[in-house]
Amino acid sequence: MQVTGLAAKSATTPLEPFEFQRRELQSGDVHIDIHYCGVCHSDLHMARNEWGVSQFPLVPGHEIVGRVISTGSDVTAFKAGDLVGVGVMVDSCGHCSQCNQGEEQYCEAGYTATYNGDEKVIGGKTFGGYADSIVVDSKFVVTVPESLELSAVAPLLCAGVTTWSPLKHWNVQPGQKVGVIGLGGLGHMAVKLAHAMGAEVVLFTTSPSKGSDALRLGASKVVVSKDAAQMAAEVSSLDIILDCVAAPHDLDPYLNTLKANGHLVLVGIPDAPHTSPDVAPIVFRRLSISGTSIGSIRETQEMLHFCGQHNIVSDVEVIRLDEVETAFERMLKGEVKYRFVIDMKAARP
Amino acid sequence: MQVTGLAAKSATTPLEPFEFQRRELQSGDVHIDIHYCGVCHSDLHMARNEWGVSQFPLVPGHEIVGRVISTGSDVTAFKAGDLVGVGVMVDSCGHCSQCNQGEEQYCEAGYTATYNGDEKVIGGKTFGGYADSIVVDSKFVVTVPESLELSAVAPLLCAGVTTWSPLKHWNVQPGQKVGVIGLGGLGHMAVKLAHAMGAEVVLFTTSPSKGSDALRLGASKVVVSKDAAQMAAEVSSLDIILDCVAAPHDLDPYLNTLKANGHLVLVGIPDAPHTSPDVAPIVFRRLSISGTSIGSIRETQEMLHFCGQHNIVSDVEVIRLDEVETAFERMLKGEVKYRFVIDMKAARP
Repeated sequence: MQVTGLAAKSATTPLEPFEFQRRELQSGDVHIDIHYCGVCHSDLHMARNEWGVSQFPLVPGHEIVGRVISTGSDVTAFKAGDLVGVGVMVDSCGHCSQCNQGEEQYCEAGYTATYNGDEKVIGGKTFGGYADSIVVDSKFVVTVPESLELSAVAPLLCAGVTTWSPLKHWNVQPGQKVGVIGLGGLGHMAVKLAHAMGAEVVLFTTSPSKGSDALRLGASKVVVSKDAAQMAAEVSSLDIILDCVAAPHDLDPYLNTLKANGHLVLVGIPDAPHTSPDVAPIVFRRLSISGTSIGSIRETQEMLHFCGQHNIVSDVEVIRLDEVETAFERMLKGEVKYRFVIDMKAARP
Repeated sequence: MQVTGLAAKSATTPLEPFEFQRRELQSGDVHIDIHYCGVCHSDLHMARNEWGVSQFPLVPGHEIVGRVISTGSDVTAFKAGDLVGVGVMVDSCGHCSQCNQGEEQYCEAGYTATYNGDEKVIGGKTFGGYADSIVVDSKFVVTVPESLELSAVAPLLCAGVTTWSPLKHWNVQPGQKVGVIGLGGLGHMAVKLAHAMGAEVVLFTTSPSKGSDALRLGASKVVVSKDAAQMAAEVSSLDIILDCVAAPHDLDPYLNTLKANGHLVLVGIPDAPHTSPDVAPIVFRRLSISGTSIGSIRETQEMLHFCGQHNIVSDVEVIRLDEVETAFERMLKGEVKYRFVIDMKAARP
């Protein structure tokens, strides 16, 4: 199945147009016409091989929304014309203890990534959503509510579920106090989702300029983390914090803001370890430092239903496919509020 | 109420005999004739003011067992002659969210420590169990099963509940795989309790010589943590690990042995932080690094019932009151299997 997309041919050359083959539709597969694809920060890391695992050519993109073109003979959950999404995973082993619990994101064999994963049917690597269509096992396809602005739905497939999953896993309830560190692609979704769940959201930031945006997105309070007095005012008050900052930093000031039994959940992976946390507050208040990786397909579907009910989407800037390199450079400077999304229709040659 | 005990008069002088006053029996109090008191490592730290918070004279001891001499007019749970215990706490605020949940060990105002805490009735500091009797609020007194060897029960009041509480809090079930790091006072209780709960226990140690003891105490397997091949054999296999080593060390090799959703629970507080953990395994397997501090009164009572049913006590070496300084020196050399307990009757002048 011939597809047109955008690929990195090497770690040091710009993305360029690329013609490639998808696998033919299998009996359990869905063929999706891609309308929009979000630009995740990891797309940039992977295109430039900054994690050392990239295989070229590499077609990025794992925040995919579009409409079903056709379905395999065994597919009953979707039909042509359905509005659907694909996120970070397109397959998993299907039979380990994690898969059996519906937690494919922690598959013991490792899930198959939407791009740069191992393509099980035709071999080679999987190619992502910077392309005009994709073929995916229906078990890894989710339904997108028709009511939402579609361009702004795309980032929900990664940034959305990555922040939704920990809020659900750690059972955030209305009235609880949720901290969010950093107002970027992930952080802005964490603020929106936690607020919609009925939590009181405190946004921690090093940039006072982000305050008004945070309040608009649903935060009740903005705390400038470099201001010791503002931090002191939050001591022992939060139930959970989502730490959406990938740069190494000191965790102790945030641990101090947690109540007994509170959780500091790391969403980002820094290049070097964070400053080693002080053990005393962890022991004396039974705190935890945890992490979380994307979310399950079940959680992704639940999150999309919730977003449909609460009219939640990402704040996005829509670009054309030939603007991705410029978008990468602007992401590196932090110049995006809060996610670039490629309009695949505008970009089609 | 005149009492004879043993006190540190300063951080640099040996413990010496000390006559002091307990408060008179209040309506909710229990007066206890102390038969045995365990020697916890923190007694040594406090006697020598190594944590910088000691007030002298200081009477250590928070692993106390004995018989009730008399009770205050409002006490219905205990009567003269009852076999009882007192652990690390003798009071708490009683009305914060943690106390209301029966988690006095995380009292937001801070619990009252059995020694060097603030004595609420007569002022000054509380004095611990290196003494012939003690007066304690009945809410902080627990019932001790008559069936157990009493000298060996004493350490259950601190070392026992400190390892029991995390096993219960993180809901260890029969058949689960529990790691224990370090076979000391805490570690040996963790092995016994986890084994009796039906878990498969893996003891991690730097000392191969501890292997046979660990197996005798209930471990299924002993892993020498410096042996990379032995550690590799445990990768992704454990549900929870109790880290009973207070010295700073590298947590990453242990994180690697946890299954998805596994917990590394720190029981000890090192003088300096541990090596900062690698974030990637925490995120990619949703691990947690947590801590735990002693346990609640409710948990202490449940643990003692459980120990009575399963005939579990600590492995102890019984000493006289005039042997405490020698015991401290032997503890510093690691020459104790696995807890010294003072026989207060032998020591009475």
